[in-house]
Amino acid sequence: MGALRLPSLTSIFAVSSARRSLFPRRSKQLYVRKFSSSAKVFAKTTPATEVATPDSNQKSSVQEQGITPRSQDFNAWYLDVISAAELADYGPVRGTMVIRPYGYAIWEAIQDYLNIKFKETGHSNMYFPQFIPYSFIEKEASHVEGFSPELALVTVGGGKELEEKLVVRPTSETIVNHMFTQWIQSYRDLPLMINQWANVTRWEMRTKPFIRTLEFLWQEGHTAHATPEEAEREAMQMIDVYTKFSYEQAAIPVIPGRKSRVETFAGADKTYTIEAMMGDRKALQAGTSHNLGQNFSRAFGTQFADENGQREHVWQTSWAVSTRFVGGIIMTHGDDAGLMLPPRLASIQVVIVPIWKKANEKDEVLDAALSIKDVLHVAGIKVKLDDSDQKTPGWKFNFWEMKGVPIRIEIGPRDVSSKSVVISRRDIPGKPGKVFGISMESSVLVPYIKEKLDEIQSSLLDKATAFRDSNIVDVSSYDELKEAISQGKWARGPWIGSDEDELKVKEETGATIRCFPFEQPQGPKKCLMTGSPADEVAIFAKSY
Amino acid sequence: MGALRLPSLTSIFAVSSARRSLFPRRSKQLYVRKFSSSAKVFAKTTPATEVATPDSNQKSSVQEQGITPRSQDFNAWYLDVISAAELADYGPVRGTMVIRPYGYAIWEAIQDYLNIKFKETGHSNMYFPQFIPYSFIEKEASHVEGFSPELALVTVGGGKELEEKLVVRPTSETIVNHMFTQWIQSYRDLPLMINQWANVTRWEMRTKPFIRTLEFLWQEGHTAHATPEEAEREAMQMIDVYTKFSYEQAAIPVIPGRKSRVETFAGADKTYTIEAMMGDRKALQAGTSHNLGQNFSRAFGTQFADENGQREHVWQTSWAVSTRFVGGIIMTHGDDAGLMLPPRLASIQVVIVPIWKKANEKDEVLDAALSIKDVLHVAGIKVKLDDSDQKTPGWKFNFWEMKGVPIRIEIGPRDVSSKSVVISRRDIPGKPGKVFGISMESSVLVPYIKEKLDEIQSSLLDKATAFRDSNIVDVSSYDELKEAISQGKWARGPWIGSDEDELKVKEETGATIRCFPFEQPQGPKKCLMTGSPADEVAIFAKSY
Repeated sequence: MGALRLPSLTSIFAVSSARRSLFPRRSKQLYVRKFSSSAKVFAKTTPATEVATPDSNQKSSVQEQGITPRSQDFNAWYLDVISAAELADYGPVRGTMVIRPYGYAIWEAIQDYLNIKFKETGHSNMYFPQFIPYSFIEKEASHVEGFSPELALVTVGGGKELEEKLVVRPTSETIVNHMFTQWIQSYRDLPLMINQWANVTRWEMRTKPFIRTLEFLWQEGHTAHATPEEAEREAMQMIDVYTKFSYEQAAIPVIPGRKSRVETFAGADKTYTIEAMMGDRKALQAGTSHNLGQNFSRAFGTQFADENGQREHVWQTSWAVSTRFVGGIIMTHGDDAGLMLPPRLASIQVVIVPIWKKANEKDEVLDAALSIKDVLHVAGIKVKLDDSDQKTPGWKFNFWEMKGVPIRIEIGPRDVSSKSVVISRRDIPGKPGKVFGISMESSVLVPYIKEKLDEIQSSLLDKATAFRDSNIVDVSSYDELKEAISQGKWARGPWIGSDEDELKVKEETGATIRCFPFEQPQGPKKCLMTGSPADEVAIFAKSY
Repeated sequence: MGALRLPSLTSIFAVSSARRSLFPRRSKQLYVRKFSSSAKVFAKTTPATEVATPDSNQKSSVQEQGITPRSQDFNAWYLDVISAAELADYGPVRGTMVIRPYGYAIWEAIQDYLNIKFKETGHSNMYFPQFIPYSFIEKEASHVEGFSPELALVTVGGGKELEEKLVVRPTSETIVNHMFTQWIQSYRDLPLMINQWANVTRWEMRTKPFIRTLEFLWQEGHTAHATPEEAEREAMQMIDVYTKFSYEQAAIPVIPGRKSRVETFAGADKTYTIEAMMGDRKALQAGTSHNLGQNFSRAFGTQFADENGQREHVWQTSWAVSTRFVGGIIMTHGDDAGLMLPPRLASIQVVIVPIWKKANEKDEVLDAALSIKDVLHVAGIKVKLDDSDQKTPGWKFNFWEMKGVPIRIEIGPRDVSSKSVVISRRDIPGKPGKVFGISMESSVLVPYIKEKLDEIQSSLLDKATAFRDSNIVDVSSYDELKEAISQGKWARGPWIGSDEDELKVKEETGATIRCFPFEQPQGPKKCLMTGSPADEVAIFAKSY
């Protein structure tokens, strides 16, 4: 399948051109506004507050020229899809992102699912202030080391210089512990299990929409327990919730596992992660769950009296999934035609495109299309009827393929006569994905569509799993590891190397340990680097 | 009804005392942490970053001594309720608030309702970055005048001084317009109707939990239209959504109306408002909807080509409801026993308190209680069973009354024998609110509880409406207005005075024009201040 062919949008193009000449911009320093063929546009180190001047040509150019083919330039393709499918746009401040309705709907679907799971597993939502006294960040030694280079600081409030500068939350462990210390007195107050949906700020230099932005949205769970065993169970439970979500909702076959010491969260004893393979075979850390041990409770004095009246520090966890996951969905399933959404997270699961040529055909086609829409809607299927007469059916086909809608229903005058429709699957391009003559009868159509949505859901997962498995190489030596990484693959091999060995691999190959997967091969193993007996295999890969 | 009588909590108290002596605080500068009997604790102008040291005595003292009676000191009562009902707590930075799970659940109930209404009325959720270039705020003249004293500024990012300081969003009209300018080309792109759920920051000097905090949560809707009529209809539609929400869900009989010029939002042509009377008869602005005209579109150049290809500036609206509404619910319905939640916004609508004395009674009572819980849960009623054996039934009664749960079900051994329960209404204190011998049979109990919840919902609205109406005085002269205000009431009278007249009233009486209500009396009117013919009555009141 080639690049997207969109009909010429001369009207929009004309307006844009006219506008540019009629209303010249104040600043001459235009910079390309579209998520263009160069990642560096977003990533480049412009002054943080340089205000981008909109290039009104933007909309047309992606749609005129089609998006960059995925195989040609993965990163350019990614940025083009985000622009053309109207998922996000640049904010005026470098590295910030505006999440547009179609992209935000994916995040809402993620929220809806996880929010229920969090409550089912005993957590309550609440909200902590985003301004944190700078001194808090300094209390936990490795935490400050990990986060201080990335902080945004408020130094002026209400027109006055502040006595102590405030950190705009990069994560909330410190302020959470400050409050937990006041709420936890005895073992009866434990476990304390909360979650918040919030924005967070990290002053990243190399940014990329959804994947790494200066501000992003996430949920962060925070819990406190009376025993280390309970905290460990909680950390594992939540990485399990994320894993199930990834497989069952996002159709992303993540590999859950434990991070190496080097890659562990700043302030955690252990970090669990789900690692996803993107379409370019780079790894994406898609969610993490930390066993914080007593690191923060010791730093903040978060203690409880146990059943014998002895005071002890609580054992804690924290865990998070962010809008980065949306980027993971784009890069796992998308193809040259654009986005491809797993049905369970799609805000539009079925789009109906009515087709007519003569004016007298229009009414009967639209009537039939409307009644199909109602039938599907009542059956709980998320359906949209694209009845605009501004665009041709061909344009609409391409547009909704670009938007990744799982199923398209086409209906023309002949279909109306035969009381049937044509159904196209987004995940199977061209004729093979097209079925003619499916009855409009709701007793036939509804179960048919539901079955197809389920089929697409599992087909996406199967395809991603096959792709992942064909790109993981078992290695038993450093040379083999280097070979695998240089081919762009993931290397899996026994590892008991030191932190220094791990950093050497990173320096020499660009790959890091993504995780020690929970699922481990049986039998004796020798470390690929040192030759010493090793208990576990690790997965190495280049990553986002 | 007197102050809350809570049994002594010696165990918690003992732990707290022990802790204070065993773990002396680093700082000697303790300040009272509880939402104490003085509003000034929260409001006082301590350095913004002064970190409060927790007073571990906090929990006990409110519960030991009971809350301040509402009639004695409304403000102290308000703060005590927030603390004792575990709605919120102070954040470490002056004027910030931690919203605790029970308080956050009220906000979630507000969100759930409004989110559906916003979507039904054609709006999509999305997300804009919270960092706004300072230069944006300066573009709309009255906007910068209104907001610049309240801004929090980020001046350092990633360890470096920024070239342009960034505003932490106090509201998003400026950044919204910056983006709209890129998305809107022609009339076909209109109307553009979006909403975001977000946090906002305003550097307020006099703060009060929920009512006015340095950071708060809200939704802000932003729309752009092709005609002024359409924008006006939208602004009115949204104040109508808020009004219906207030009456039907929150049981708050708000008065919808138009703000005076003086009180209009910085940057709007017209501001519509819903004004609520709190229990102390002060007014609370509980939601606003602005017709922005072309003020922002002119400042930002947000234009569209109409059907003839002519370029015009769009007509806009914005509208918001915030966590302040939670404060409004507390101050409308609460009484000396604490919070009183309208059933439709209560996260717990029914609490079951099992009662047993002898060990052999416990099992059968708990069994019956559990089965009642299941029956109600299946029927869609939000129910909690308080089966802890740490507290006495009397303690639990007081605790759940404090938490404002609309209905309590008591069940003891005798009730088990007679297969019946005792039901107490939160809104009718003591014996009159208690009904004995309601059958446990689900066919009886479920409809009974549902009917009672509906009764409580309307009863709360009726009571608040009667209170409101008995405290609004119709006035025809400035003397009468002054008299009404000095009695703590609202004054309603014809008004066509100047801005200066209005400011004079404020200076001399402390009251402001809350609104020109939509519902206006018929017949000729004379301005209470100038004696000139007036078209409308205005409502004057002291306000939060």
